[in-house]
Amino acid sequence: MDLKKYITDILDFPEKGIVFRDVTPLLSHKDAYQESIHLLSEFAKDKKVDVVVGPEARGFLFGCPVAIELGAGFVPVRKPGKLPRETVSKKYDLEYGTNEIFMHSDSIQKGQNVLIVDDLLATGGTVDAAVSLIEEMGGNVIGIAFLIELEALKGRELLKNYDVYSVLKY
Amino acid sequence: MDLKKYITDILDFPEKGIVFRDVTPLLSHKDAYQESIHLLSEFAKDKKVDVVVGPEARGFLFGCPVAIELGAGFVPVRKPGKLPRETVSKKYDLEYGTNEIFMHSDSIQKGQNVLIVDDLLATGGTVDAAVSLIEEMGGNVIGIAFLIELEALKGRELLKNYDVYSVLKY
Repeated sequence: MDLKKYITDILDFPEKGIVFRDVTPLLSHKDAYQESIHLLSEFAKDKKVDVVVGPEARGFLFGCPVAIELGAGFVPVRKPGKLPRETVSKKYDLEYGTNEIFMHSDSIQKGQNVLIVDDLLATGGTVDAAVSLIEEMGGNVIGIAFLIELEALKGRELLKNYDVYSVLKY
Repeated sequence: MDLKKYITDILDFPEKGIVFRDVTPLLSHKDAYQESIHLLSEFAKDKKVDVVVGPEARGFLFGCPVAIELGAGFVPVRKPGKLPRETVSKKYDLEYGTNEIFMHSDSIQKGQNVLIVDDLLATGGTVDAAVSLIEEMGGNVIGIAFLIELEALKGRELLKNYDVYSVLKY
């Protein structure tokens, strides 16, 4: 199944010069969505995943069904002000400015096997920050899976110490 | 399985006077999360669901796995500025001020059977607005499923013309 048919390129969104990869046609097509979740889950099925971690909000679209497929729990990575209990957080650089992600500080148990799932690997900044938080809490990052990888942005180099998989490469 | 054990009550979050129902302990507990998705899917399994609609961001946590369980597609309801193509939108009243939700205007096909899934039924404003958009696009709302229902807020009355299910009532 050619999943790229269900990804729409949008020029200059959310700002000028950016090509946004819109996954909503894939999500709404039941066979394309099922196939995507199947491939992401296959990557991790022998890795004894305890918990899947996914960044808000598009990471939830893929990470949550993968968690259910694998029989694992799910832990969200969130933006400021969303998590009600004690958090750990990590800032990271964007092209312009910085961003900060948050996880509940009791969300990963020492020794748990963690799979990170997100929709898109660009520079890898968000996921690299999530890796730091997970390891700080004592989790083992046993793999990182993306629906889409933008190879020109070299996010894979930033994550080179980890087992990285992507369903679709551009 | 007593799923309420995995919901934590947080007083005065996100603002004073609100009791926030934190579902993150349920998500991270694999059996509790699996059971929740199973119960939500069971409600809809004979309804010939074509597509599941879920509001950003917590609706994704439950709606996406339910879509995969049912073999359906998934359509996100999003906040302003998140969807890159032509949208339909609907404003609705909050206790203080208004909110506006967006869907891609081609996201629901005429005659499709739509299940709405969200984490929590409070006043029902968000989901009621989503129903309007779905019906405007020609979809049939064949059911609405929540993990949690706050009965005192009477959201079910606002949605009385629909088949509403909740896993946990408070």
